[in-house]
Formats: sequence, C-alpha cells, structure tokens
Amino acid sequence: MTLYVNLAELLGARIEQGLYRPGDRLPSVRALSLEHGVSLSTVQQAYRHLEDRGLATPRPKSGYFVPPGRDKPALPRISRTAQRPVEVSQWDQVLEQIGMQPNNDFIQLGRGRPDIDSPTLRPLLRSLSRLSRKQDLQTLTYGSIRGDQRLREQIARLLLDSGCQVTFEDIVITTGCHEALSAAIRAICAPGDIVAVDSPSFHGVMQALKGFGMKALELPTDPLTGISLDALELALEQWPIKAIQLTPNCNNPLGYIMPEANKRALLALAQRYDVAIIEDDVYGELAYNYPRPRSIKSYDEDGRVLLCSSFSKTLAPGLRVGWIAPGRYLDRVLHMKYMGTGTTAQLPQLALAEYIEGGHYEPHLRRMRMQYARGRDQMIDWVSRYFPAQTRVSRPLGSFMLWVEMPEGFDSQRLNRELAPYKIQIAPGSIFSAAGKYRNCLRMNYAAKPSAAIEAAVRQVGASVARLLEDNHARDTAMHTD
Amino acid sequence: MTLYVNLAELLGARIEQGLYRPGDRLPSVRALSLEHGVSLSTVQQAYRHLEDRGLATPRPKSGYFVPPGRDKPALPRISRTAQRPVEVSQWDQVLEQIGMQPNNDFIQLGRGRPDIDSPTLRPLLRSLSRLSRKQDLQTLTYGSIRGDQRLREQIARLLLDSGCQVTFEDIVITTGCHEALSAAIRAICAPGDIVAVDSPSFHGVMQALKGFGMKALELPTDPLTGISLDALELALEQWPIKAIQLTPNCNNPLGYIMPEANKRALLALAQRYDVAIIEDDVYGELAYNYPRPRSIKSYDEDGRVLLCSSFSKTLAPGLRVGWIAPGRYLDRVLHMKYMGTGTTAQLPQLALAEYIEGGHYEPHLRRMRMQYARGRDQMIDWVSRYFPAQTRVSRPLGSFMLWVEMPEGFDSQRLNRELAPYKIQIAPGSIFSAAGKYRNCLRMNYAAKPSAAIEAAVRQVGASVARLLEDNHARDTAMHTD
Repeated sequence: MTLYVNLAELLGARIEQGLYRPGDRLPSVRALSLEHGVSLSTVQQAYRHLEDRGLATPRPKSGYFVPPGRDKPALPRISRTAQRPVEVSQWDQVLEQIGMQPNNDFIQLGRGRPDIDSPTLRPLLRSLSRLSRKQDLQTLTYGSIRGDQRLREQIARLLLDSGCQVTFEDIVITTGCHEALSAAIRAICAPGDIVAVDSPSFHGVMQALKGFGMKALELPTDPLTGISLDALELALEQWPIKAIQLTPNCNNPLGYIMPEANKRALLALAQRYDVAIIEDDVYGELAYNYPRPRSIKSYDEDGRVLLCSSFSKTLAPGLRVGWIAPGRYLDRVLHMKYMGTGTTAQLPQLALAEYIEGGHYEPHLRRMRMQYARGRDQMIDWVSRYFPAQTRVSRPLGSFMLWVEMPEGFDSQRLNRELAPYKIQIAPGSIFSAAGKYRNCLRMNYAAKPSAAIEAAVRQVGASVARLLEDNHARDTAMHTD
Repeated sequence: MTLYVNLAELLGARIEQGLYRPGDRLPSVRALSLEHGVSLSTVQQAYRHLEDRGLATPRPKSGYFVPPGRDKPALPRISRTAQRPVEVSQWDQVLEQIGMQPNNDFIQLGRGRPDIDSPTLRPLLRSLSRLSRKQDLQTLTYGSIRGDQRLREQIARLLLDSGCQVTFEDIVITTGCHEALSAAIRAICAPGDIVAVDSPSFHGVMQALKGFGMKALELPTDPLTGISLDALELALEQWPIKAIQLTPNCNNPLGYIMPEANKRALLALAQRYDVAIIEDDVYGELAYNYPRPRSIKSYDEDGRVLLCSSFSKTLAPGLRVGWIAPGRYLDRVLHMKYMGTGTTAQLPQLALAEYIEGGHYEPHLRRMRMQYARGRDQMIDWVSRYFPAQTRVSRPLGSFMLWVEMPEGFDSQRLNRELAPYKIQIAPGSIFSAAGKYRNCLRMNYAAKPSAAIEAAVRQVGASVARLLEDNHARDTAMHTD
C-alpha cells in the first residue's frame, strides 16, 4: 500500500472510532507530516483520499474537518453473555445457510464469501489451469500429510508480516481454515471440555464444539476491542477451561481488531492458567491498514497458540486450502488432520505456491483491502439511509462483513423468511452464538463492488426490518390494551 | 467390458480360487458356450485371453488345461485377533508412510495409490483445466454442504451397478473417502464406544478410532471370504458394539470379495443387534469381474448402512472427492462433515460430473480393471520367484494391492529400514491392526504397469526379506546354543 493510502486509512480509522467527531478540525497537514515523517504532499494526497470517501471536508484556509453529514448509526452494544458453559444449538439455521447452491439467483448477503471477480486473481487461475492438465504424481496422487513444502515456505514468509517467526516445518496445510480449527479443537479438547469463545463468534467453531460434545463459554465482547479480559480472567478462575478460541483480527462478525496490549494480556492469562489459544487469523491480511495487525501467535513463547488461517477470504474459498501453525501441538494436530481427511489436495497448493512466488499475492491483497474499505463505507451509508433509526452497526477495520443490531425482540430468522420471496438472504445473528443469542442481529456481506442491485437488496432488507419492528410494536401495544 | 473378457475373468477367478487345479482339464468350448449363452468364438477368444495371462494352455484336440507351472504361494492364514476392544496404536508408523512427498525418488510400493498414467484420464484433466480458468461463483466459492447436485446424480446412477437404489438426495460429497469414513464414525459413535472391524484393516479407520477415543474390536478375517460371522455374532453378544466397519469388496489389504450370502447374513446380524454398518466401498468398482459385486448397502432396508466411497482409487486420489450415502444418519453426517471441513471444493466436483456425463468413466474402469488383474498375476509371479519359499500371499479379486505374509517373528518395519538405502518402501503390516499385529506381513502395490524397475524393486524386497529371515534364524540358533 502506498504511504498516502496508509495514512488515510489511519486517519479514517480514528474518525470511525470517534476520536474526531463530526465538525471537528482534523490535524494540519504540517502536523501530520511531522508526526508520520512523510512529505507534505503525501499528507495532502491522504486528505484528498479521505475527501473522496466522504470522511473529510476541506474549508478554505482552515484545513480539513470531519463533515457533519448524517450521524453514523450507533455501535452495537457490548454483548451480554450467560458466562457459563452451554451446549451449542442452531444447527438447523446453519444448515439453511450452507445448504444453498452457490449459483442460485439469491443475493446472498448472508454468506462469508469474498469478491472473486478481481483481475488480480487471474494469474492463479492460469496456474490452476496449466497444472490441471499435467498427468503426474505430484498433481494427481496423495501429497504429504504436512502439505506441499513450497507452499508452506511461502506461508511462513507471509506470516512474518503478522510478526510470526515460524518455518515451513511449523506449518501443516489443511482443507480450509475450517479443518484447521476443527483439528485444533480436537487436538486440545476432549468431549465435555469447556472452550472460552468470543461472542458473537464464527458458527463453524460453534458447530464443531457442538459436534464434538464440548461446551462453549461465551464471553462479553466489545465491538471495538474484542473479548473482555476481565470476564475471561473470572471465567478462567471459575471453570476448568481447556482452550480459548477467538478471532482477534478483523473479527467475524464484529470487524474489530483487538488492541495489541489486549493480545499480550490475553496471552499472559493463558500462560498463567495454562490453557491453549486457538487463534483464527483468516481475516488478518484483510485489515484496511497496513502493516497488518500482529497475531497473538507472534507473542507466543511456549507454543501454546495454534494459529489457523486460509486463503478462503483473501483469494477464494473454493480452493479449500488453509493452514495451521500448531506450536507444541504439532503431532496431535497432524494426527487429527489425518483422521479427518487424509492429505490435502495437491493441485491448488501447487498453484498457490506459484502465485505467491510470482509476486501476485501482495498486489491482490492491496486491491482487495481498498475495495473492502470502500465497501464498508458504502454499506454503512446504505444501512443508515434504509434501516430504521434504532439500528446499530459495527465499524469493521478489515474483512467484508457488517454486524447490524436491531432492538431486542427483533427476529432475524423471521426476517430471512420475509426476504425469501425477494430472493435475498442475510445471516441471522443467532447462528453466531452457542446459546442462540443475537436473534435481534444480522450479518451482511459487502465484499462485492457496490451495485444498484445490492443497494436495492439492502433497501429491501431495511424495509422488511422496519415492517417487522412495526409488527412487534403493534403486537406489544395489543397485548397492553388487552 | 466385452463378453469374452468377462468370461475370461470368471474362468480366471475359478482357477485362482482352486476350482481347477494345475493339470486339470478346463470346460470345453461348447459347454461354456451353452452355459453362458455366448457364441463359440467368444469362448475361444476368452481362452486365448487366459492363455495370454498364463492361466490356460491349449493341447491339440484335447481342449484347454490349467498349466502345471510353478505352484502358487500359499494363502495367508486366517487372522487370529485378540477379540476384545483395544486402543489403537501405530500412529508413528502411519506418519512415516503418509509424510512422504509424492514426487520423491522412492519406489513407493507401500502407498495405496492407483495408476494415474492411463490416457482414459485425459478428458478429466481437460475438464479440470477448462473449468479452472473460469472466474465464477460456482468454481471459486463455497458450494452447498451436500455437494454438487449434478455429480450426486451421476454417483446415484453409478451406485445402481452395486445394486443400490438411492437418489442424489441420499448422497453427500466429501473430501475423499477418508472424510466419509471419519464423518460416519463420528455420526454413530462417541468416545469410549466399540467398533467391530475386519482385521487386517485400513489404517485410516484405525487411526480415526484412535483419535476419537474409540476402541477397535478386531475380528478374525478369512483371506477369501472376509470377516468371520461367527466371531462377529459372539462379539455382538458380548460387547456393546456401536458399529461394524468393514471393506467387503476388494478388501484393503486382503483383496477378497465377501460372498453375497455373507453380506446378507452380516446385515441380518446388524439388524438383530441394532448396530450400524460403515461400509467402505472405495475399491468396489475395481473388482476384476463384471458386473461388480453388490454392496451390503444394496440389501439395506432400514437405512443402517453408511456407504462410503470416493474416486481416489478409480481415478486419482489428488481430486479428494468422495461421497457417503448415510441412510438414516444423513443429518448427523451432514453436521459432522460441516464440522470437519465445511463444504467440499467445487472445481473437481464439476469436472467429475462432466467426465462421467461424457461417458468417459466406464471405459476407464474397464481398462483399469484389466490392467490391475494383469498386475496381480505379475506381482504374484514375482513374489513366488523372488521371495523365500515360506511366503504366503493373498489372491486379490480386485483393486491393486497384495498382502504378503512371512513366518512369525519377521519384522516388516525393520524390512522398511533395510530397504530405505535402496529407495524402496513397503507398507508394514502392523499399521493395518489396531493392536499392532501383522508385523510379519506387508502390503505391496501393483497398480503401475509392470516394469524392469518394479521387478528389480520386488526382487530386492525378496532378497532383504530372505536376509532378515536368516538373521532371525541365526539369532534363534545362537539363543538355543547359548
């Protein structure tokens, strides 16, 4: 990413987080130039970039200001959780999401898929196509259970950006991040064990805990800073927790990046209580600011962090190539990986190794980060226009998903049924909780480039939300006058 | 398969099974023509085919005879097992097999991979290559958790050949047969549960039982007819068995096909004791005789059989596309599949659907069956030439693996270490047992077309076996004279 974009993202994030409020004067060009050690023209470029995104307005001779504009919707509330281990439910609702064919004619705002239309993906498709024609042992038979060494070397290099010092020998290739998380959970925990999780949290992990007969202990999670460390400490004192599973970077579904100090404090807690950390970093490379945020794994000293990730969100989910850096649990994880699927398909691994070695990956990431940052602004704008006034939304600092909170009593599963005739689908909030909380929330995807069709869909979602809220209100009133 | 090849295979199997002994006169051309309702010239072609394979010799004016030739090595002994539930070990040895890169310069006689050099695979590679270039949702994003419908329709059609009447809705696509078996086991059993297995048995299943904390109850298995039904019944009476897991068709590693009557009797036992059957059919389409043998699933009336299979042995393992027809356990299996890996890669599914729809699969199967049948004859011939006289070998009726049994006290893991400097690798027998039995056995692959290099490798294995046996003998003698 160029210097000016980086600076613009930084300023944008500060505005987003409320450090500068509408009407506030932003720092002078000279002050920023000194603070960041960049040229005056770089700062000016950054401000023009913010102006394009509607985040800064120039006033002649006075500098840049945060535009008054519409007020942004409020942030979601800090989640209140049961704070005791619960069994996981909601499989039916998850199945409804993942049972759909990819090529149906729904506008699937609910699924966690990236934009796959970027021309920066083409070199990867060319590699895949060329390698697919090869009739040899390397492409058509079983690879090593550890995965292709060239790809693992490239992943080790990429991990340097997150502060991780690992070699290819520390990495195992998996069938997507999904298998990495599944193998990590099984490597650490037995049925009946308790896993502390951020909440809301990825439904794949929730369902894995359910399937393996483990219990989830959902912890209150702040929409800007993540899992509550106080609550975590209390839980560690109170319960025999085996592992902490969380997504600290560009969290799914809330979009926050956990502050570095919190990451270190969380690791210290894990050390003190001797529990493992299963870190989902699948969105880490899609943080809008560069350099990307550090992983908890990067602070790990005794191999207790199992870093799980994949190319599903950065490149394409269809590749089904992920990885895990399991620290001291390497042998257990290898065993769990073998039990689950045997070796991982070679072809996409070889194509990915070529693509990254060929220098195509980083430019692609830069492009997607910018697209998704713009997508976020657009989606928040649409929601603030088309959704009822009580709506609260997250402020994602990476990835491509928005968390939308409606008043208590709202039912996002019912919303999905209302939207079906319009061929629109959102992700109901309840699948992001072990206990079926967050029925009043929903998650929407903004990966695709903004279009009239998507705007119309979001507008329809907003209209349906409004109607359901009115229904609720009418019902409540009827009950009171009964 | 053409009529004459089919007839030749049938006669060949009878000779193999000892119905006709060396020196016996084979049925007359006229008798066979009447028996099978085929023309005289078809029978003559069949006999010429058997002649080419060294299984029949013409004598002028007297007809065809079984050639005297070398005596075939004896069959392996019926396995004697502990017949009580045991925890599974041997992970280290399995890891040694599956940790190898596919393109190393070892002659890997140990791995279960098919020949991938056949020109009949080319239409599949062309489809893969063409589809890989497509930048669309169908190829690059998440598919349905159930898998691609077109492919599932084709699989349902193929299953008709095994006597199974299922529709695409009964089928879930998995990441290889490995994931199908893993999901089936987890769908039925909890940690601590007991699973009855044939023995020797596929190490992937053994390791899955280990990893999930289940126990294997190994049952005596006949090298010609499979799992002992008497022993199974006794075990079902004695232990709270949750599932029976076995490979009745072209068993890995023994190569037998369980007689149909035994399949029906096994299913009746499962019904009586209300246990599930996890049937591995991954080699079923590679039976040398056509039509292929029926699956146990084909007799299933109450949905208790979970049929697991894949294209890994018939086409190429690198595709990582398998399936499961889980009967009444469909919802549980879907959940387990989602927990393990999420959705399966779309691209190979779409290419496979095209390949099968295009009529390329059946001709490929015919070709591979014939190649593997010849490969078996060649491999048995080599073993009888190059291995010590005490050697016993299996008589596979399908697939491409030979089970070789040496006298008690022989150590096939030590053999592998001896072979490493020659860059040859076999599969040690102990990985095919939960309890580490069969150290005196090994499995060798004969999928590749016979070549001087493979012959030299087999000769070297035989020489190393002989040397180790002499060592054992010398050691025993030394101990006795001590």
